[in-house]
Amino acid sequence: MANAGLIVIGDEILSGKTTDTNTPFLIGELRALGVRLSEIAVIADDIAGIGETVRRFADRFDHVFTSGGVGPTHDDLTMAGVAVAFGVPVERHPELSSILQSYYASKQTTVLERNLRMADVPAGATLLGSPQLTWPVVCVHNVYILPGIPEVFRRKFEAIRERFRDVPFHLRQIFVTSEEGEIARHLDKIAQKYEGVAIGSYPLLNAADDGHRVKITLESKDAALVQRASDELASLLGVEMIIRRS
Amino acid sequence: MANAGLIVIGDEILSGKTTDTNTPFLIGELRALGVRLSEIAVIADDIAGIGETVRRFADRFDHVFTSGGVGPTHDDLTMAGVAVAFGVPVERHPELSSILQSYYASKQTTVLERNLRMADVPAGATLLGSPQLTWPVVCVHNVYILPGIPEVFRRKFEAIRERFRDVPFHLRQIFVTSEEGEIARHLDKIAQKYEGVAIGSYPLLNAADDGHRVKITLESKDAALVQRASDELASLLGVEMIIRRS
Repeated sequence: MANAGLIVIGDEILSGKTTDTNTPFLIGELRALGVRLSEIAVIADDIAGIGETVRRFADRFDHVFTSGGVGPTHDDLTMAGVAVAFGVPVERHPELSSILQSYYASKQTTVLERNLRMADVPAGATLLGSPQLTWPVVCVHNVYILPGIPEVFRRKFEAIRERFRDVPFHLRQIFVTSEEGEIARHLDKIAQKYEGVAIGSYPLLNAADDGHRVKITLESKDAALVQRASDELASLLGVEMIIRRS
Repeated sequence: MANAGLIVIGDEILSGKTTDTNTPFLIGELRALGVRLSEIAVIADDIAGIGETVRRFADRFDHVFTSGGVGPTHDDLTMAGVAVAFGVPVERHPELSSILQSYYASKQTTVLERNLRMADVPAGATLLGSPQLTWPVVCVHNVYILPGIPEVFRRKFEAIRERFRDVPFHLRQIFVTSEEGEIARHLDKIAQKYEGVAIGSYPLLNAADDGHRVKITLESKDAALVQRASDELASLLGVEMIIRRS
């Protein structure tokens, strides 16, 4: 099963100036694609910190996505950080440069040297284009560099999403009236017996309107296996405590 | 200036089964307290991974907060992970144990062995109580262990928040009509001259209703310094491009 990591780069998220909507979006997308999201890091605008985090993620995960820190200003340090992670210099990319030149020409404005900085990428970067995209996605090894602006993050991810599609997850849920302490031994038993099924237990502070106090989730890429695990857990729990299953 | 790290523990966040509201809450709280949030990690329910992340954060940041993974079920691994981080065993805490016993006695239910597991904490942990709290906050060195349930996370943090209060941040904002490329050189100049002021530049995809395309933020713990930097930047930018300041 492919796994992924997400690195959100930006002081504005850590300081609460901007609400991070790219993370919830990517969580949903990766889940729907059947990709396990293994870790999220939210880090500051700092080259060394970006470099260290990208290195760690690129070593551990199949796919790494970064959000933010691309642009022409002093606080846009993602390209430099990714370059540090892979020990390569930042270089002006001829194809990106000409895309930028054409863009500014089409607006009949002179391209500023500062705007051309957006063509400076880690050496060896590849460009992933698509007919829907004005700008391609910059990719370095297994790291996909996406911008922080939510509309653009979304558009760029959607243009490359199919390359990540994997076997889908299958989810079963059981909603029970009991507290976690009472059901823990049953969960242990099923978790031990069905190693290929991820089992979660999520209590509420107060019972929900329908009376459930704990939501149990069972998840696997094997539909038959997760169904068996769910059925066996339900019979251990007993019908009295089960409000509903899905 | 004190800094902090937040570690959110839970497969349910990474898989999108639960929306993480503790992070936005803590971002706002720490900002209001004058504490710099330096990094956020969202990680899976895995003892080794929790241990490694807690170790890294505890070494780097003044205060570390964890969210989630405490409770009586098999997927509640935060205490074990924090114990690994500090190389200590998990032990039953007599005071926590008696609090749990009293709680179940007050509900006239027998306390289950599984519920008493919530009294198992890393050796050397201290308890931070307050009159508002039924359960104290468990603290190991500079790591504050908070539960994932949002209402309880919030209540527990609010009970201990004053111990983190620091000199407040001062924020100035300038909203401009220009693109980032046009203002980048002015930002560079102010960023270089005022090292004690953090300067951010946040573009919109399309101009806002009031016409601004970029929000510039200037922030510091020195109110006079940030005001000077903001005034000097405004005069570099020129009144024509400034929509408003705050």
